[in-house]
Amino acid sequence: MAASKPPTTAKVWRSVGVLGGGQLGRMMAEAAHRLGARVVVLDPTEGCPAAQVCHAQVVGDFRDKASVLELARQVDVLTCEIEHVNAAAMAEASAVTTVEPSAETMAVVQDKFAQKQHFADAGGVSLGEFREVSSEADIAAAGAEWGWPLMLKARRMAYDGKGNAVVPSAEQVPAAAAALGGAGPGALYVEKWVPFERELAVMVVRGRDGEVRSYDCVETVQRDSVCHVVIAPARVDGVLREQARRVAEAAVATLPGAGIYGVELFLTQRASAGEPQRVLLNEVAPRPHNSGHFTIEACECDQFENHLRAVMGLPLGSTAMRVGAAVMVNALGTGSGDADLEATWGPLARGLSTPGAALHWYGKAGVRLGRKVGHVTVTGSSPMEAAARAEAVLGEPLPGAAAGAGGAAGGAASAAMGGPGPLVGVIMGSDSDLPTMRAAAEVLRSFGVPFEVSIVSAHRTPDRMMQYARQARARGLRVIIAAAGGAAHLPGMVAAMTPLPVIGVPVPLKHLDGVDSLHSIVQMPRGVPCATVAIGNSTNAALLAVRMLSVAMPHLADAMEAYQADMERTVMEKVERLESTGWEAYGRSD
Amino acid sequence: MAASKPPTTAKVWRSVGVLGGGQLGRMMAEAAHRLGARVVVLDPTEGCPAAQVCHAQVVGDFRDKASVLELARQVDVLTCEIEHVNAAAMAEASAVTTVEPSAETMAVVQDKFAQKQHFADAGGVSLGEFREVSSEADIAAAGAEWGWPLMLKARRMAYDGKGNAVVPSAEQVPAAAAALGGAGPGALYVEKWVPFERELAVMVVRGRDGEVRSYDCVETVQRDSVCHVVIAPARVDGVLREQARRVAEAAVATLPGAGIYGVELFLTQRASAGEPQRVLLNEVAPRPHNSGHFTIEACECDQFENHLRAVMGLPLGSTAMRVGAAVMVNALGTGSGDADLEATWGPLARGLSTPGAALHWYGKAGVRLGRKVGHVTVTGSSPMEAAARAEAVLGEPLPGAAAGAGGAAGGAASAAMGGPGPLVGVIMGSDSDLPTMRAAAEVLRSFGVPFEVSIVSAHRTPDRMMQYARQARARGLRVIIAAAGGAAHLPGMVAAMTPLPVIGVPVPLKHLDGVDSLHSIVQMPRGVPCATVAIGNSTNAALLAVRMLSVAMPHLADAMEAYQADMERTVMEKVERLESTGWEAYGRSD
Repeated sequence: MAASKPPTTAKVWRSVGVLGGGQLGRMMAEAAHRLGARVVVLDPTEGCPAAQVCHAQVVGDFRDKASVLELARQVDVLTCEIEHVNAAAMAEASAVTTVEPSAETMAVVQDKFAQKQHFADAGGVSLGEFREVSSEADIAAAGAEWGWPLMLKARRMAYDGKGNAVVPSAEQVPAAAAALGGAGPGALYVEKWVPFERELAVMVVRGRDGEVRSYDCVETVQRDSVCHVVIAPARVDGVLREQARRVAEAAVATLPGAGIYGVELFLTQRASAGEPQRVLLNEVAPRPHNSGHFTIEACECDQFENHLRAVMGLPLGSTAMRVGAAVMVNALGTGSGDADLEATWGPLARGLSTPGAALHWYGKAGVRLGRKVGHVTVTGSSPMEAAARAEAVLGEPLPGAAAGAGGAAGGAASAAMGGPGPLVGVIMGSDSDLPTMRAAAEVLRSFGVPFEVSIVSAHRTPDRMMQYARQARARGLRVIIAAAGGAAHLPGMVAAMTPLPVIGVPVPLKHLDGVDSLHSIVQMPRGVPCATVAIGNSTNAALLAVRMLSVAMPHLADAMEAYQADMERTVMEKVERLESTGWEAYGRSD
Repeated sequence: MAASKPPTTAKVWRSVGVLGGGQLGRMMAEAAHRLGARVVVLDPTEGCPAAQVCHAQVVGDFRDKASVLELARQVDVLTCEIEHVNAAAMAEASAVTTVEPSAETMAVVQDKFAQKQHFADAGGVSLGEFREVSSEADIAAAGAEWGWPLMLKARRMAYDGKGNAVVPSAEQVPAAAAALGGAGPGALYVEKWVPFERELAVMVVRGRDGEVRSYDCVETVQRDSVCHVVIAPARVDGVLREQARRVAEAAVATLPGAGIYGVELFLTQRASAGEPQRVLLNEVAPRPHNSGHFTIEACECDQFENHLRAVMGLPLGSTAMRVGAAVMVNALGTGSGDADLEATWGPLARGLSTPGAALHWYGKAGVRLGRKVGHVTVTGSSPMEAAARAEAVLGEPLPGAAAGAGGAAGGAASAAMGGPGPLVGVIMGSDSDLPTMRAAAEVLRSFGVPFEVSIVSAHRTPDRMMQYARQARARGLRVIIAAAGGAAHLPGMVAAMTPLPVIGVPVPLKHLDGVDSLHSIVQMPRGVPCATVAIGNSTNAALLAVRMLSVAMPHLADAMEAYQADMERTVMEKVERLESTGWEAYGRSD
């Protein structure tokens, strides 16, 4: 295997040719340098972003066959940073050198209808409904069948929302078709409108040997159809994130080429409370992707390096996150004037003063409306820390977040409002335990820890308890607080079915003053611990949960020290008042 | 302030000239690109490591005044990646452009005797003894006074152990002096031999406004006087690491120039068990440093970017680690032959297959003995994970580590053997509690969690208890397990004086069967939680500690799931045996 061999010369390990020299090529070149690879880009603009930092540039159009072949002859492997390349030229180049992803893959994905049809034919990839159209009548017929609005898309050369049109009604079909260049055969296709709650994305890397690895599922937030913010991991249940990864991996596994793929997905809206949400494939780009920029700081091997490893036939790198959470903010041009320059630079200027913020300026020749000129990624030990830092960079609240970064809202409300997923699950055997447990919720909220509150009864809902406990880790919970009274089996049973730390709160019932609950919860057999707190003291359960989380999130240890200092101050004030008032008067005049 | 202003052109933010174009310049250029800065290097070797990836090179000697001035005229700020530059030329260049660190700083540090004298004069920096020598007789006199061996050093042009000689005895003085070019006036100086336990290093960045920030203290391990491995954080008590940072910050605060500084330190050996260890300054290099390479992956802003921020007058970046631990391994040339090439490449080849390993190949023209040709940094969520990954990259045990990565040894033994610092403190009120607590130690060892075991009595050693609790977080502990019987105040009192989670183990005494201890430990007042486990069940205390650590260290959650599956298997075997043997015979024939 290539990986175990030393380079044939110590100077460079291998040379890579890249079609396109924008910011994706630039960041690819930076990853290549670390691997000791020589990078040559093909781009029409002399001194393009990638050329500024790489070994050499072939000045030419990356769609021009002669230029592609000229580059191919100079390198060990040819790849691309953009999908709008000349697939036929890539096919020819593969006679000269290794070409990845394959020309076949490029041809399939370039035609977005053919791409969708490819995934439909392959099976195993959840898709919304879509259909080829060859006339305005076809479009109108689809709308009549599926309802309005209808999504009309150009099959080729679409990016950043360009090439898409939302058709609100049958009357608007001609105008929409005209805006996309006309509805002649082979030009357009339609998609049934998908009411989605959020847009998700998953980066997937595929090795030359077909091995597929995915990164954690992220959430993308668009502004004027251009990616503006990416939140990693996505602020949805961990089980849904896993589902998104499976859909994305299944899609990429059907494509023959090696490299990194950006997979865009929709998370459907719930039509009713009980209905499960679905993850649908939107589209796949066979290249590094804006929704994967967070991987540079946040993951063990970033999307650019993993792309190079894949196309060079090296072992794939780990896709695991090495931080608790990350948020990427694009610097998008607001126009071309002087004021626009300042506004565009804004996130980067604020990023310079934000801890945990990493700047990436692309070195483009100018700024114009909607142009991506740089990005900032913030990392944090927790979703709350990353969100607060992202808001410092944005200069405004994180899109779709609950008011007050840190997901102060608890339970289902938190998810619905777009806060980070809950880290602490607060469950109780019965709603009669809620008066005891309310204090726990208040403490967690005051520390800005996202949490959920629900009823899980060991004896009345044993299946639910088992499901809750078994899924807790995958869903993203880190700590469980469980309250129960009397026989009080809930905390211990949950502890038996999760590797997470479980805190038990003994709830006092009518008889025995809670000692029954205490003993039931604390006297667990060897092998399954349950962290027990004082009878009825859910405040301490929440404080203990915060201390546990602080093992991973130092900002919570700082907050706990502040809380302790505050307690001390409060008591010292009472000391002073008692000493100045005297014990006889104390409390009487208050 | 410069930070809040947009670039004057969107193309580049600022241009930086770098004296020297080796790997430090190369990594500096990579950081500059992210900030949108243009980099020009001055180096005699065309296509040197930095020139391969930066905007332009001035081919010339970085000690040649004309070349330095030529570079200075092209850039907004001039800096260096090597300290052996022409300080006089830098002084002249400062009339042309901004020069950082200042020529004055360079002049002071280039002469290692002058550097030491500077710190001695400044005060507040702990130093070993040193002395100027102008003859072999001076050297012999110092040895006679301080004892042998004696450290003899060249005042100028020393690096990677070159320019240093250990003089074992008076007889060896002439040979040692000759090896360093002779003991004439101004050439050499001597240092009293420092018996050190470990070599430490701290990277410190100093802004133009004098603001000083340090990174976490690391441990450096040399091979043949060249840096081989860097371990972050250093495997010493957190209080000592803080002390090292204070010494390093104090030293850098005395220097006038802006930029990053590599500060090398010694941690002295303990002469006797009770004696405190000292942190002594060894030397300071006013540039990015090998012991700071780990910051690229492990810290919120790396040493190269922070150097650029400092010299460009931008706000300094956060020096906080964003991972639990990191280890850097240098790829050092083993010679110039074909086999050497393969051996040299070894760590990088192994790094390609190691999760969490990041490769850095420098693109040097050839490999030769001791030459640094690249490095690999592994990160991990815990010191154990980082150590295991580092060993995969090294292909051998981590230098100075206890046998079996993961610091299986407990207590003082762990530190002495060079394992990672303890994450769990196991304390008990009396040695009579040890039989109860031994099981906790065994569980922690089986999970590979580094821990310490000691006696801390609330009632007999209240001062010690207070010190233990108050220092626990700073020392690096993440969880405390405290056992006590009867009145059992230890767990709760410790919990009152630390923000860490505290697990209480009620120890049963002669009377009351442990219920007294249980109630004393669990019934804590609102505000101070103590996670209580079953009476006498220290196994569960340790398992709970592992679950708590797993909040930060996912590999421990995986290990806990495996432990739970194993428990289930063990019971299922008993089920099978009982069912096949029958209840009458079960246990009788065993």
